[in-house]
Amino acid sequence: MTTLLETQRLEEALLQFARERDWEQYHAPRNLLLALVGEVGELAEIFQWMTEAQAAEAMRQPDTARHVREEMADVMMYLVRLASVLGVDLDAAVREKLLLNARKYPPPGQPPQEEHGTP
Amino acid sequence: MTTLLETQRLEEALLQFARERDWEQYHAPRNLLLALVGEVGELAEIFQWMTEAQAAEAMRQPDTARHVREEMADVMMYLVRLASVLGVDLDAAVREKLLLNARKYPPPGQPPQEEHGTP
Amino acid sequence: MTTLLETQRLEEALLQFARERDWEQYHAPRNLLLALVGEVGELAEIFQWMTEAQAAEAMRQPDTARHVREEMADVMMYLVRLASVLGVDLDAAVREKLLLNARKYPPPGQPPQEEHGTP
Amino acid sequence: MTTLLETQRLEEALLQFARERDWEQYHAPRNLLLALVGEVGELAEIFQWMTEAQAAEAMRQPDTARHVREEMADVMMYLVRLASVLGVDLDAAVREKLLLNARKYPPPGQPPQEEHGTP
Repeated sequence: MTTLLETQRLEEALLQFARERDWEQYHAPRNLLLALVGEVGELAEIFQWMTEAQAAEAMRQPDTARHVREEMADVMMYLVRLASVLGVDLDAAVREKLLLNARKYPPPGQPPQEEHGTP
Repeated sequence: MTTLLETQRLEEALLQFARERDWEQYHAPRNLLLALVGEVGELAEIFQWMTEAQAAEAMRQPDTARHVREEMADVMMYLVRLASVLGVDLDAAVREKLLLNARKYPPPGQPPQEEHGTP
Repeated sequence: MTTLLETQRLEEALLQFARERDWEQYHAPRNLLLALVGEVGELAEIFQWMTEAQAAEAMRQPDTARHVREEMADVMMYLVRLASVLGVDLDAAVREKLLLNARKYPPPGQPPQEEHGTP
Repeated sequence: MTTLLETQRLEEALLQFARERDWEQYHAPRNLLLALVGEVGELAEIFQWMTEAQAAEAMRQPDTARHVREEMADVMMYLVRLASVLGVDLDAAVREKLLLNARKYPPPGQPPQEEHGTP
């Protein structure tokens, strides 16, 4: 399968940002994980009192849309930074997981793949 | 600023995966958000009893490393799928947020930017 | 205001449970916090694909109901254990926060309280 | 086993608080769950950049201590309100789960309980 996700330039930008501020010392895996949790929490707060219909239309409100973009960016940046620090290749990880999911949930009309079958 | 993050092929792969299984109906924003929370929770569980030193070495254990890759992939896939459903351009969102952060936290030796200064 | 919440016997039971297994060494605040995140994630997974109507009726399915009770219990136990380890009096904390909230959100027909008014 | 946790007066106080503001309409299970996620996120943010040693001493800083008490109170209040709305008896749920845990993790020196043994 070809590349699905490219994060390398973001990883470099985040590393440079951290280095310029002497923040690398704070970027331990569990710190970044708690920071990720914090940002997911902020994203949840935007949607907590919305109906499903309001959530589907949320991006039509400019203030809400900007807030959503900011919180999703924060989640993405901590996730990518955590991957850098741990040495996880996110593109490879996503491709592997998609294959696992495709085997676990075959599309209707296809039999479940055998354990060692080609996915 | 140039592109930092490319998610388009992953967005297409996730959309196709959902369509083949008639799962698009479940991909409402709050559903995907709760699924994201679930996957972040699974990632947290991997690290919950580790010391900082153990967390820094976590990827040396093959089973732990595979588990981390799988959970980070799940977090990434729900985040990217949520962005698709909401119509968020994650690359643009990340670039905007990096500029905001650079203005908010100028590197040492540089004065804070003025509100309307060039970042 | 009188006591609203009593957690003391649960705190004692959890401490005893940890001591009998020599688990106190693992109950550092950030460990318990990550464990709390993990359990909230498991609770989120139960509700992630439900409509609001299904969520409101979730407890009528015995298997779902048992799962919800187990995950809510896990969230409660890590929250109470974290409070013990940090030395937080949860009843006092809840009473203080309710007063803050009542001042911040006065009921309709009542003026917002002044900063130093009696709540 | 005797009662370990009493939440009834808090449940009543939270119901009354919601009624006085006409907020019961917003207290759907998934809304309260997302609100719980948001508060856990705020709690995580307090501890995200602390070392374990700093976390263990966090309550000695009055500002941090007040912040921790407020966020833990918020987590507790949404958890208890969610239990009310779902009809979960938290004390019973906690007692059941403790028995399950005791069976799953017998203390050292005791054999694992049989499936139907007395716990």
